[in-house]
Amino acid sequence: MPLMTTANLRLMAVAMLAFATSVSAAPGGGDAAAAMHRRVLTIDSHVDTPTFVLRKGWDIGERHRPQDDFSQLDIPRMEDGGLDAAFFAVYLDQGPLTPEGYERAHQRGIMKAVAIREAVLKHGDELDLALTVEDAHRIVASGRHAIFMSMENAYPVGRDLSLLPAFHALGVRMIGLVHEQNNDFADSATDDAGPKWHGLSDAGRELVRRANDLGMVVDGSHASDEALDDLIATSRTPVILSHSGVRALLDHPRNLDDARLERLAASGGVIQIEAYSPYLVATPRDPPERADAEDSLLKKLGITSLGEATPGQKRALVAGVRALDQRFGKPRAGIDDFVAQLLYALRRVGPDHVGIGSDFDGGGGVAGLEDVSDYPEITRRLILAGYDESDIAKIWGGNVLRLVERAQAAGKSR
Amino acid sequence: MPLMTTANLRLMAVAMLAFATSVSAAPGGGDAAAAMHRRVLTIDSHVDTPTFVLRKGWDIGERHRPQDDFSQLDIPRMEDGGLDAAFFAVYLDQGPLTPEGYERAHQRGIMKAVAIREAVLKHGDELDLALTVEDAHRIVASGRHAIFMSMENAYPVGRDLSLLPAFHALGVRMIGLVHEQNNDFADSATDDAGPKWHGLSDAGRELVRRANDLGMVVDGSHASDEALDDLIATSRTPVILSHSGVRALLDHPRNLDDARLERLAASGGVIQIEAYSPYLVATPRDPPERADAEDSLLKKLGITSLGEATPGQKRALVAGVRALDQRFGKPRAGIDDFVAQLLYALRRVGPDHVGIGSDFDGGGGVAGLEDVSDYPEITRRLILAGYDESDIAKIWGGNVLRLVERAQAAGKSR
Repeated sequence: MPLMTTANLRLMAVAMLAFATSVSAAPGGGDAAAAMHRRVLTIDSHVDTPTFVLRKGWDIGERHRPQDDFSQLDIPRMEDGGLDAAFFAVYLDQGPLTPEGYERAHQRGIMKAVAIREAVLKHGDELDLALTVEDAHRIVASGRHAIFMSMENAYPVGRDLSLLPAFHALGVRMIGLVHEQNNDFADSATDDAGPKWHGLSDAGRELVRRANDLGMVVDGSHASDEALDDLIATSRTPVILSHSGVRALLDHPRNLDDARLERLAASGGVIQIEAYSPYLVATPRDPPERADAEDSLLKKLGITSLGEATPGQKRALVAGVRALDQRFGKPRAGIDDFVAQLLYALRRVGPDHVGIGSDFDGGGGVAGLEDVSDYPEITRRLILAGYDESDIAKIWGGNVLRLVERAQAAGKSR
Repeated sequence: MPLMTTANLRLMAVAMLAFATSVSAAPGGGDAAAAMHRRVLTIDSHVDTPTFVLRKGWDIGERHRPQDDFSQLDIPRMEDGGLDAAFFAVYLDQGPLTPEGYERAHQRGIMKAVAIREAVLKHGDELDLALTVEDAHRIVASGRHAIFMSMENAYPVGRDLSLLPAFHALGVRMIGLVHEQNNDFADSATDDAGPKWHGLSDAGRELVRRANDLGMVVDGSHASDEALDDLIATSRTPVILSHSGVRALLDHPRNLDDARLERLAASGGVIQIEAYSPYLVATPRDPPERADAEDSLLKKLGITSLGEATPGQKRALVAGVRALDQRFGKPRAGIDDFVAQLLYALRRVGPDHVGIGSDFDGGGGVAGLEDVSDYPEITRRLILAGYDESDIAKIWGGNVLRLVERAQAAGKSR
């Protein structure tokens, strides 16, 4: 799609939103929106909070602020933001496709899943692990937050998939095959080397079949266009994009083009719009000097690991990174850009096929949507755009739960 | 060794013990023994309590009785028995050496380790996971019990050992290569098929080297004689037999002959005497009708899984199994037989090379040593046999901790 058209569409959407926002300032609107936000079951389908959970001394039960340590989700802020549930990602960056690489991925993947389970267990008064839709409803009805587990990058299950049942037993109910580079299962949307398989490999197709057998939802975020086509063709149950964008508003390989958006919806699938700035506004690649500047910053602050850093060091790091963003002219999207993508997808495929997956704690976060405590604003924007409570309930959680339900009903492990 | 000699030795030992026991009835002796038992750091190097921990509704924080559900270790009885620490085994019976078998072993092994961690976490006021000798001392000093993790059967690490670092990360600090049948790593002491490797396989030797690198103690219990010879020759740090017996008193392949006992001690290793009746008194194999009778019993009681059984069903099952033991004339060893093996080993190789590994919850338990609450009696017997507090401290825990320390000091993962 030519850049001209994309840019124009984006500008139009933002203009519409500016108008909508001015209307919403009317007295009373906020309270009704807040009440509705509390009533619906809200789910964020992709957060990387486990990265923080694994960090020494970091406690999900305590309140944090992005400006202090980048953190965007904890129990006090789930309360503030009326967030009932989230998929906590067992994420691994793509390592070498060697025996040593796989061995390290096994260890790190398992320990990330274990860290999620143990954090949930430690905070049993506020959190509980959800393995089924029934669990989610029961946990939320008890006044707690439901934590689902997902995998972002199936690399830890091994080339022979021999850890797939183990990760299922650990609680993983949604699985994405690939991350930012191609792997043994699928092509990534963003590998500089270009496609390796032109979609899924045979192992990737086998992985999808076995995930279906186990009743896991298959996640197409980070997959290349061809790999997504293969996923939809191979999976026996609808595919989710747990955190992606729409290409009509920004021509980025992590964003879905209209034809695929419609094919995804026609197959029963769902796209969860992501609050990650580079998928929302055109962002040049970081110049090589940026990495050097970050290294210098860490050195200057005396930080070798975030787990060891003092609160003062962490605050200085957050400020320093933001200063680097300014120095290198890195744009930062705002909530209007996020809402523009959300509303675009909704107009295109309707409220049964769109939801929210922030990527908080994994790069997500835009001006006005800094952490989970800002979520009520999304509901307010959806009301202003004319969506009613039943639509909003689907967008905020119903669609994801429908896919979990369908996957488990079609699984052989029930 | 001819049976005649073995039987004679056993009878002599038991006679000596009967004398010692009569002496111990002297007033005052019991209190002093109890006080010493409380002072020394006590460790059982092999229990299968994780099997119970995995059982639905079973809580290690509650008091149980063997006659109710076979259980032999829980927190209240650790208190009663003055047991400071135990190695909880990630045990798997030997399954098929196929991709499906390994896949199932990965899943079951990981979930057993996770169940141990989570039970410890749930009872953080009374228990804590020990990864080092320093941990054990710190935990016990805080008035809690230290739980170490071991593996019994390395099958779950996979033929390619790719899960060895993951199990180390989960907390495993001691690893036995094999169980009752030969596997890809080693010959078992008890495989009817006879030796497959005549010791360790190449993969088994590689496993020992990698366990050494990770700082794990290598465990020779269940290994064949030849495999034990290979283990001692291959391991860079002393080998433990976490739960075994002495062949001089009973000619059983799970028991160590005198020459190997002395070689083990000369290499710095330790044998932990087991309270498992068939290694203590000659026990004929169960006739095939016994398995049928157990099936009938379960059917009669309407039990399909112990996790689902009612307290009444479980009590009836325990009574029924004991009745079957009588009907089929199965002998049951007593504490005298256990102490006879313990004292025999002590006389042969001294208090630096002998300890206690009950196999409670895995088949262990003899008359008079029914569960961990009976442990003070072992200390009393040791005092009567002339061992002083410094000896008893080594026997009860110091030797095991020395091996853990040596293994970790020689590891590359520190």
